[in-house]
Amino acid sequence: MEDDSNSLWYEERFTESLRYMCRVDTYIFSHKSRWQKIEILHTKVWGKVLFLDGKIQSAQIDEFIFHEALVHTPMFVHPAPHKVLVIGGGEGADLREILRHNTVDKVVMVDIDGELVDACKKYLPEWSCGAFDDPRVELHIDDGRDWLTRCEDKFDIVIIDLTEPLEGGPSLKLFTREFYELVKSSLTPEGVISVQSGSAAPSHCRFFSSVYKTLRAVFPIVSPYWAYIYTFQMPWGFNLATLTLDPLVDTTTLERRQTERQVTGLRYYSPHLHRAMFTLPVYLQKALTEDGYVIEDNTPYVWEA
Amino acid sequence: MEDDSNSLWYEERFTESLRYMCRVDTYIFSHKSRWQKIEILHTKVWGKVLFLDGKIQSAQIDEFIFHEALVHTPMFVHPAPHKVLVIGGGEGADLREILRHNTVDKVVMVDIDGELVDACKKYLPEWSCGAFDDPRVELHIDDGRDWLTRCEDKFDIVIIDLTEPLEGGPSLKLFTREFYELVKSSLTPEGVISVQSGSAAPSHCRFFSSVYKTLRAVFPIVSPYWAYIYTFQMPWGFNLATLTLDPLVDTTTLERRQTERQVTGLRYYSPHLHRAMFTLPVYLQKALTEDGYVIEDNTPYVWEA
Amino acid sequence: MEDDSNSLWYEERFTESLRYMCRVDTYIFSHKSRWQKIEILHTKVWGKVLFLDGKIQSAQIDEFIFHEALVHTPMFVHPAPHKVLVIGGGEGADLREILRHNTVDKVVMVDIDGELVDACKKYLPEWSCGAFDDPRVELHIDDGRDWLTRCEDKFDIVIIDLTEPLEGGPSLKLFTREFYELVKSSLTPEGVISVQSGSAAPSHCRFFSSVYKTLRAVFPIVSPYWAYIYTFQMPWGFNLATLTLDPLVDTTTLERRQTERQVTGLRYYSPHLHRAMFTLPVYLQKALTEDGYVIEDNTPYVWEA
Amino acid sequence: MEDDSNSLWYEERFTESLRYMCRVDTYIFSHKSRWQKIEILHTKVWGKVLFLDGKIQSAQIDEFIFHEALVHTPMFVHPAPHKVLVIGGGEGADLREILRHNTVDKVVMVDIDGELVDACKKYLPEWSCGAFDDPRVELHIDDGRDWLTRCEDKFDIVIIDLTEPLEGGPSLKLFTREFYELVKSSLTPEGVISVQSGSAAPSHCRFFSSVYKTLRAVFPIVSPYWAYIYTFQMPWGFNLATLTLDPLVDTTTLERRQTERQVTGLRYYSPHLHRAMFTLPVYLQKALTEDGYVIEDNTPYVWEA
Repeated sequence: MEDDSNSLWYEERFTESLRYMCRVDTYIFSHKSRWQKIEILHTKVWGKVLFLDGKIQSAQIDEFIFHEALVHTPMFVHPAPHKVLVIGGGEGADLREILRHNTVDKVVMVDIDGELVDACKKYLPEWSCGAFDDPRVELHIDDGRDWLTRCEDKFDIVIIDLTEPLEGGPSLKLFTREFYELVKSSLTPEGVISVQSGSAAPSHCRFFSSVYKTLRAVFPIVSPYWAYIYTFQMPWGFNLATLTLDPLVDTTTLERRQTERQVTGLRYYSPHLHRAMFTLPVYLQKALTEDGYVIEDNTPYVWEA
Repeated sequence: MEDDSNSLWYEERFTESLRYMCRVDTYIFSHKSRWQKIEILHTKVWGKVLFLDGKIQSAQIDEFIFHEALVHTPMFVHPAPHKVLVIGGGEGADLREILRHNTVDKVVMVDIDGELVDACKKYLPEWSCGAFDDPRVELHIDDGRDWLTRCEDKFDIVIIDLTEPLEGGPSLKLFTREFYELVKSSLTPEGVISVQSGSAAPSHCRFFSSVYKTLRAVFPIVSPYWAYIYTFQMPWGFNLATLTLDPLVDTTTLERRQTERQVTGLRYYSPHLHRAMFTLPVYLQKALTEDGYVIEDNTPYVWEA
Repeated sequence: MEDDSNSLWYEERFTESLRYMCRVDTYIFSHKSRWQKIEILHTKVWGKVLFLDGKIQSAQIDEFIFHEALVHTPMFVHPAPHKVLVIGGGEGADLREILRHNTVDKVVMVDIDGELVDACKKYLPEWSCGAFDDPRVELHIDDGRDWLTRCEDKFDIVIIDLTEPLEGGPSLKLFTREFYELVKSSLTPEGVISVQSGSAAPSHCRFFSSVYKTLRAVFPIVSPYWAYIYTFQMPWGFNLATLTLDPLVDTTTLERRQTERQVTGLRYYSPHLHRAMFTLPVYLQKALTEDGYVIEDNTPYVWEA
Repeated sequence: MEDDSNSLWYEERFTESLRYMCRVDTYIFSHKSRWQKIEILHTKVWGKVLFLDGKIQSAQIDEFIFHEALVHTPMFVHPAPHKVLVIGGGEGADLREILRHNTVDKVVMVDIDGELVDACKKYLPEWSCGAFDDPRVELHIDDGRDWLTRCEDKFDIVIIDLTEPLEGGPSLKLFTREFYELVKSSLTPEGVISVQSGSAAPSHCRFFSSVYKTLRAVFPIVSPYWAYIYTFQMPWGFNLATLTLDPLVDTTTLERRQTERQVTGLRYYSPHLHRAMFTLPVYLQKALTEDGYVIEDNTPYVWEA
């Protein structure tokens, strides 16, 4: 044992046959909210980490990779994003990244779990960096789907940052064709959406493929992309869908947009990386073609832990 | 416990505070060779896996990612690779990938650990797919550096596929400026080398940076690149160095070369992915600039487990 | 990691919230027999270990404690045991201990799992020490209860050495009142039986209590006793039942019997320890009185892992 | 994962090759005091648990076994204990047990770690049950050996309840012949001491043997005894030493003393168990004879984790 270290470990089980353990410095917060088990802890190797229902959501050391990939990719595809909607994203890091774009007038965030949002504000302020207090931000504690059904507003960008669809969990109905129809109807004509879409590892990319196929059933243009989230210990899949715009914006345009919007301080995303993220290896291309199915309300995708 | 599963686990420690465990179906082979501890086992989640000195080397489920990235990237940069040298690469998977290129007349492989090579031939035939029996292949059991010192041959491609430089381990003197000088002197004028260069994860990329800087001290052109090795649970770094050639060959040329050389059956590498692999995220660009040092014989890089 | 050690661990789960891990030197044997999962392995700390269905059965370092406690306690209560029956006891260590008593003419062992017995003969010869080849020993591969139903023989001693009654496992019907009636009917008038009866730890002694109460429903004299099995990581319960004899034989008589029978080489049991083993702490006395129930065929005790 | 359970585990390493893990409900307290790392946590299986320097000290489910064995055994050997000294015993559970004897006028407790005592008072009140507030109790935060050197008082009973002598730890000089000489000189003529003496497991009883031999070098009468502490996952050794009294008091006398002193509520110790605890199995008798050495200041016993 290291001299002053606690003998306390956090264990995440990927499957019955694979797990990892991370030594805990401080177990900061543990609470069973109405929706999920929330755990926040501090580790020497990864800094603070958030787990929901025993699955890692983000870690201080590399949450920037996930959130920059999820947010800036669609934001830079759009020529001038003014109104942005975030569904999920309780940590507030999506907000932080969105607000870097000075074109943004308004960000609406809808998360089902107010207890999670409160815990993140209190214990993970490094994630939101004050974004919850930004006057452009409007927070609704609500089911994203219910809220969208009632919503009459239109958005340039929709960021969908949800937990995996666990059996009985809050995300189950937010990965379906019916839900994406709703999202589509809330977009402005040049609207762009991005969706966190789960593991992109060999043999563990059926969920990624299914989200891709489901979006394809709704949107005219869908481009899958990926990033490597170190603390997820896997390459990770995303999907970008648009009504009209080409996701593969040329690098010069992206650079101009970054300069004009005064987006600085990025640690993962760059205009050069934009295209690279959309370039998938052969195994993923194949999986996206051959694997998965169109998820519908009556045939939901249930994540098997 | 799953019904018929063994209660046997393999544990790899990344650091004192981070480890993962993988359930073992069959513990196939364990042997302390003259050079290292060799362990080969079968797991449900990853198929067969090879560990050296307790560190994962390759797994059946995704060894193709590592070996395709390490081999095809330099092979396709070269207009017509005839003679190839592999230093390390005991599994024989580098050979397998090299031999896909029909331009290849001869492949020399130098691995220090004959017991490892024998074990891989016997227990991991899926890695080499018969490559050790190919008449173009010449195998030397020797220290790569000693062998190179005596070698008077010249190679178009040199693949350096070594284990991390553990204290007292066989790889310590094969990541130094002096060694790379030796490699350089064994290249044909259009020669290309690739070097497996360790983790590319945030905060764990000092080795990658150091190998990069060391190669920069020797070669006129050095380009770092990366790939996502799922079972390493990290993004992984590589370096490609050349005497004269530009690593960023255009996609059309790469596609032509792949067709002409009749390279088929790839599952990770593609001409499109080639450029994407060389596009690094901001944090890695920064680390490669700011972190690391030129490794020399008298200031070796010692991997801290 | 110790220098030459494998990174291989055996994990036993006591409950969902408690488990231990033991580093494995050699994973000797793994087989799913018709009846149970058999695993035999070698560890540095405990020597060879046998697991059935993921639960430790005996370890080289201290199997003598279990087997001496189970065998010599009833054997020395009886003035002159000639015929002994063992139900279960696949390792052959019960045989080894029984045969130390030179009064013994015949030992019949009935174990349901011939594959287990074969594996123990082959891989755990240190347990049986040749006992299976002793001409006094007669081995039947059969269900103990079925065999007893057909058996017309009478025994001075019956040793019941069964695995915990797992759901669907082979031992479920051999811990019931009906089974003990059968055992009773196979005893000579001065007959003595001993039964391995599970954990004697605080809050984990309901099985021990239930076996005690079930025997009490059948035998006129029942005395619970205990021993400290280190590798079970728990104090362990046993029950001794007789038709007429007092289990608390005085120490002088026990010493005389040990001398006369030329029983030597014991490492746990001694005439002095005999009485101490029957002296239970307050919490166990209380549990044996207040906890548990009479197990019957239609209300079996199912072990919850 | 159980529904509401944390994925948090406490790991204790016995050796490099053996460890156990216990799921944590609440991680209550963690502090590096001047003397040791203190951790207090709540588990479903064992209730609250105290660890010092990563080694379990006591658990709510069975601390009564340890403390009753350590305290009542010497207390009942003495015909009328009035003044009692406890060295160590920071949890306050020794006090709780001592105060059950209505003969006691005064208990002095000397523990080196005031931060530990404060933490136990605050977080483990179930251990001391108010004993720290009893007017008969006098608490000194001091090194037990230094304190004894200056002490001019005499005691009927001395309870020595110290952590294992870790390298550089606070207990290293309190398991030596020189220290026991000091203890001896502080006893009344009928004085009795008990010493927690570590593991009594096969092959792990060299420390027990050494403490025994060291006491033998100082006291005319020394009797080793044992108990099974479930959460230590081992049988545990103790030594009782006296100047004149016979430790094996007859059961009738013990029962009379218990009644006269109105000692009630015991859950482990009983007059019947008294003698049984002093009856050791053959392997321990042998180890106590053949193993270990007389520990002196210049040849300290250092616990190897």
